[in-house]
Amino acid sequence: MLNRAVPEPAAPAFAALETPVALVDLPRLERNVARTAEYCRAHGFAWRPHAKTHKILAVAHLQRRAGAVGLTVATAREAEVMAAAGADLLLAHPPFGSARLDRLMALPDEVRLSVALDSAESLRGLAEAARAARRRVGVLVEADLGTRRAGVQSPACAVDVARLAADAPWLDYRGLMFYAGHLRMRPEQQREPIAALSAALAEFRGALEDAGLPAEVVSGGSTATLLRSHEVAGLTEVRTGTDVFHDRTTAALGLCSEDDCAYTVLATVVSTAVPGQAVIDAGSKTLSKEELRAEGRGYGALVGHPGVVLSGLYEEHGILDLSGTDWRPRLGERVRVIPNHVCVSVHLQERVVVVRGEEVVDQWEVGARGRF
Amino acid sequence: MLNRAVPEPAAPAFAALETPVALVDLPRLERNVARTAEYCRAHGFAWRPHAKTHKILAVAHLQRRAGAVGLTVATAREAEVMAAAGADLLLAHPPFGSARLDRLMALPDEVRLSVALDSAESLRGLAEAARAARRRVGVLVEADLGTRRAGVQSPACAVDVARLAADAPWLDYRGLMFYAGHLRMRPEQQREPIAALSAALAEFRGALEDAGLPAEVVSGGSTATLLRSHEVAGLTEVRTGTDVFHDRTTAALGLCSEDDCAYTVLATVVSTAVPGQAVIDAGSKTLSKEELRAEGRGYGALVGHPGVVLSGLYEEHGILDLSGTDWRPRLGERVRVIPNHVCVSVHLQERVVVVRGEEVVDQWEVGARGRF
Repeated sequence: MLNRAVPEPAAPAFAALETPVALVDLPRLERNVARTAEYCRAHGFAWRPHAKTHKILAVAHLQRRAGAVGLTVATAREAEVMAAAGADLLLAHPPFGSARLDRLMALPDEVRLSVALDSAESLRGLAEAARAARRRVGVLVEADLGTRRAGVQSPACAVDVARLAADAPWLDYRGLMFYAGHLRMRPEQQREPIAALSAALAEFRGALEDAGLPAEVVSGGSTATLLRSHEVAGLTEVRTGTDVFHDRTTAALGLCSEDDCAYTVLATVVSTAVPGQAVIDAGSKTLSKEELRAEGRGYGALVGHPGVVLSGLYEEHGILDLSGTDWRPRLGERVRVIPNHVCVSVHLQERVVVVRGEEVVDQWEVGARGRF
Repeated sequence: MLNRAVPEPAAPAFAALETPVALVDLPRLERNVARTAEYCRAHGFAWRPHAKTHKILAVAHLQRRAGAVGLTVATAREAEVMAAAGADLLLAHPPFGSARLDRLMALPDEVRLSVALDSAESLRGLAEAARAARRRVGVLVEADLGTRRAGVQSPACAVDVARLAADAPWLDYRGLMFYAGHLRMRPEQQREPIAALSAALAEFRGALEDAGLPAEVVSGGSTATLLRSHEVAGLTEVRTGTDVFHDRTTAALGLCSEDDCAYTVLATVVSTAVPGQAVIDAGSKTLSKEELRAEGRGYGALVGHPGVVLSGLYEEHGILDLSGTDWRPRLGERVRVIPNHVCVSVHLQERVVVVRGEEVVDQWEVGARGRF
């Protein structure tokens, strides 16, 4: 299960853990995985969770056992590590350059690889690499349905790229992929935007069908819209990410409760010298200094202390603003922080300590976080 | 030099580098190191660069050879890795908990260790650990001169902690430490704030002297004020960080030119589908999504393209806003990005590729970035 020669010490007791350290609560993780798996099963969706959120092979195995058809990955490293858990991988990032393409073509033969892309240039490079490696590679055409990040802008462009894929000897055109990252809102606000998404998607699907290139796969992603995916007409596959752990953002958006957050950072109070605040040993190099993309201030939520604002992050110092609470932590006291954005905090950890409440049950390497 | 069993391939040619990848320009690095070393030598300061910025043993060796008296570290891991380069280490972060203290006490015997702290509680834990390990440890009392992060708030408190240190059998009280992170301004704006800093510092130094506990070491840090350190009365030691690489922030503050920035991220344009923008394969997991703490928009500067704004970062996608430029990158084109805050971007890399312009000369592991 380990991908590098990291010495794996026996799991220490909770009280002996050196901070800052990332914790994953196993019962919550299992509950989150089961919930998404059940939703996808109930609606007949193929479920392809994105490994970028956890980057942990053991978590990928959990998702596969719960019914995931395969995994989504964003980097070559994620593909290499997750190959062991997912005989079926979708790279949701257009590959360029021979170094990247060579790594993808060198994935184990048993991996069924698909790639999402949005340009003839990217497709030609992939076609050439697949031909040289004599490897079949699936292609999804990425369409932009409003996020304005990547993706072909018109149904006509989608048809052009799909046709190139269908005509390339070693490529298998499979369908459409989109990312609905612009729908970052509370569930009750989503009905109209999701209807608009369905309408835009229908145009792409119709044009492909008219061109004799019907999309067998229609893969959609976005944690915010996850549990409304059945309102998106024509969707066949759901890519999920953050929901495996949840975080302060998904809680603030009403997609989960704080009790669903399976990932926290355990930190120690190291200074209370400045009046009205306390300093913990988790800063931007542990939590990541990302603003909350929802209502709320600060860089994370302190478990059990809703009145505390994590108002500032230096690299190894986190500032707790105590002006909204009567709680006065003592030096050496430990606290747990739910990060604003769990994916980037996980990416900062070498490993996570797996707990059941305050019982340490395992340690997992974050094996896919690197590049090499 | 390597701390983990990472396979170290032969350095690839520049054109063959897989992106995103961090580059360190060796001539610029050497020039930055020489400039700070010369400044400290000219003014008679002990120079103790902070390893947190680079986390690379080879860079620490460069700094030591240029005259650094030792290194500053923030984590136990940094201390363990940098022990090989600095017989003299200052831990600028109050240690709490037996796990952390045990690691510090287990540093090689030849390491002269000092710790900066701001409380009797932290000092008592350190004193106990030093006694148990029969290891002499130096103590600097951290004073808050205006940053409001950590540090004792009054000269009387400084005297209390200094006395505890002086009285502890295995501890050696050495003096004062402060971090002037609040002076984040252009050099021409600094005269008055530095005068205020000197005045505040004089009160702490005076109280300690009056108590029979004169500060032999007065250690100050902040890249922004670095080259005005000689205006701070009583300073004996200078801790520097960002200046080893420089970044978009120090350039925006007028502390260096863009040509001094030794660290860049090489990235590839992977999508131009959305009109008016382009997407690169460096996102928040490579650059870190930190706002610029100076004038200017976006999450990094594109070398050679001042009109481009890196307007958005997803995890593995960076959005280039092209509305302010005529430049239209082609797909597959490579660009170099100077991050807003170099310390957090380095922390995201397993290794850096060392270059002279576009010639690859070496690869260095970012050996101290982990926790374990």
